[in-house]
Amino acid sequence: MATIKDVAKYADVSVATVSRYLNKKGYLSKEAEKAVAGAIKALNYKPNSVARSLYHKNSKMIGLIIPDISNPFFPELARAVEDVALTYGYTVVTCNTDDDVEKEKRYIEALKQKYVDGLILATNELTADDYKSYQLPLVMLDRSIGDEIPSVRSDNYKGAKQATQLLINRGSQFIAHIRGPKRVQTAEDRYYGFKQAVEENNMAHIVIESGFDLESAKQIMQKTLSEYPMIDGIFASSDVMAAGAMKAAKSLSLNIPNDIQLIGFDGIPLGEMLIPSLSTVAQPIYKMGALSARLLIKQIEKQLVERYHYNLETTLLERETLRSEQNE
Amino acid sequence: MATIKDVAKYADVSVATVSRYLNKKGYLSKEAEKAVAGAIKALNYKPNSVARSLYHKNSKMIGLIIPDISNPFFPELARAVEDVALTYGYTVVTCNTDDDVEKEKRYIEALKQKYVDGLILATNELTADDYKSYQLPLVMLDRSIGDEIPSVRSDNYKGAKQATQLLINRGSQFIAHIRGPKRVQTAEDRYYGFKQAVEENNMAHIVIESGFDLESAKQIMQKTLSEYPMIDGIFASSDVMAAGAMKAAKSLSLNIPNDIQLIGFDGIPLGEMLIPSLSTVAQPIYKMGALSARLLIKQIEKQLVERYHYNLETTLLERETLRSEQNE
Repeated sequence: MATIKDVAKYADVSVATVSRYLNKKGYLSKEAEKAVAGAIKALNYKPNSVARSLYHKNSKMIGLIIPDISNPFFPELARAVEDVALTYGYTVVTCNTDDDVEKEKRYIEALKQKYVDGLILATNELTADDYKSYQLPLVMLDRSIGDEIPSVRSDNYKGAKQATQLLINRGSQFIAHIRGPKRVQTAEDRYYGFKQAVEENNMAHIVIESGFDLESAKQIMQKTLSEYPMIDGIFASSDVMAAGAMKAAKSLSLNIPNDIQLIGFDGIPLGEMLIPSLSTVAQPIYKMGALSARLLIKQIEKQLVERYHYNLETTLLERETLRSEQNE
Repeated sequence: MATIKDVAKYADVSVATVSRYLNKKGYLSKEAEKAVAGAIKALNYKPNSVARSLYHKNSKMIGLIIPDISNPFFPELARAVEDVALTYGYTVVTCNTDDDVEKEKRYIEALKQKYVDGLILATNELTADDYKSYQLPLVMLDRSIGDEIPSVRSDNYKGAKQATQLLINRGSQFIAHIRGPKRVQTAEDRYYGFKQAVEENNMAHIVIESGFDLESAKQIMQKTLSEYPMIDGIFASSDVMAAGAMKAAKSLSLNIPNDIQLIGFDGIPLGEMLIPSLSTVAQPIYKMGALSARLLIKQIEKQLVERYHYNLETTLLERETLRSEQNE
């Protein structure tokens, strides 16, 4: 592999000149510039990326910190981040924190030592001050944490409210909401959207808290449906939870959508695979990932950032877990 | 943040001495060693990881090259790789190639310039010679490519044969196999396992090729089930394909398992979420990822590798898409 010395020799200039060319710093005559460019091309020289990191204190790497890539909401998000990063010449280091604050800190410190250029954070553990102390460009994904750190999320409140209103419009009269854990911002926002819709309609309802996994949602819904047989509509805080609710209804021989209508949240591919296919509030998952990567790279490259906070629209997908339209 | 100079000053030794200590190279008196260790601790000094990369030509990073993290087989695999890597102090750069040979090459070159320490490859595009030319420690995951490159996969042939035999034992008399694309090694192996079982039993059968996605599998199965109403058993080359087959059966008002029994392959969480829950050949996905990371790190750290090729056992999961046991 050609070295910087080979390039200097071939171009008949000093190593310092080649270095100035590579780092775009300091004066260079047109002639020297042409000679160096020619030599680089002729020798197929590739600047050593680690040496460049040391000089520029950057690495063309970004860190993506998520709770768990096995949660089916995250693969598409990660995919979008990687796609956009690749377009701009960045690679992505993915880190799973399991919502463990110590693990998150260890990861961020390791990334900082590698001169990672910025972080996309889809986690819930640290405070804004913690994050700012790392002195890195940041984007919060799927959450926000004050005004100073840019954020990309979807309008969880509005999506949840629309979903609940749709259950009501289609004739549900006692609606259960399976909400996610209280410490999770998205679960809170969806809960408030649900709350708003049932209160505006004076609708009988019940709220149950569950983990975001299938088994927890299934078990708590089995119990709840047994205790409250009048439940005829369910709004679940995620598609996986909705799949758990479907299992629970099935185990009690309740038909979806005839006995109970059901809407999930997220819009992951799972929803289409279920039978009946799951109605859901679809987040623009790929767009969220892509936007957050662009927003981060703009900060890294000190480009103009027109907007720091995004609250994206969700889309109601009406599939087979809702009864067909009557007179809404 | 403390620098190497601060450490030298605090320990009252030269910078070169601290460097020898950090790089574990050259002579160091017991006294100097103790002084440097004490200074590092007192100042909470963290050696600059990029500078160390340049010196050692390593980075404590490994690359994970996969076709697409949104394919639900890969998140758990990626998770396992990252978990094991973290234990050994490595971070993971994930790259999605979309089975595009040029994209794969670009990624590997970018990683090599960052002194990535080794690669785990779950892709199908390059040849063994291509891979060896990168002169990096490698592990093939979910495939093998000659004897020289270590590999971790599951016994696709045997798993497929067992699944087909089980359909036959449970009374299926005309079995369809939805196979994956011909260029994919795992799809080939599963096809041969199926073939062996139907031939040993002189069983009527049909083989259909499909992409690994839900929609392709659904469409081709709708067509096939319409043309061959005698089909009463399906072995699908992946769980997602099996979900597509379930959709197709449902659209034709065929009951699973009463009219048609169904077995998938992979053992991803989706299978349990479906109604009826999907019988499948479960691969030890997490174990495959974890083993491949360990095998790679052993090579990187020049430790003894006892075994270079793993062909792991699969597990038949009998769920609700099979009729219950009669007299097998």
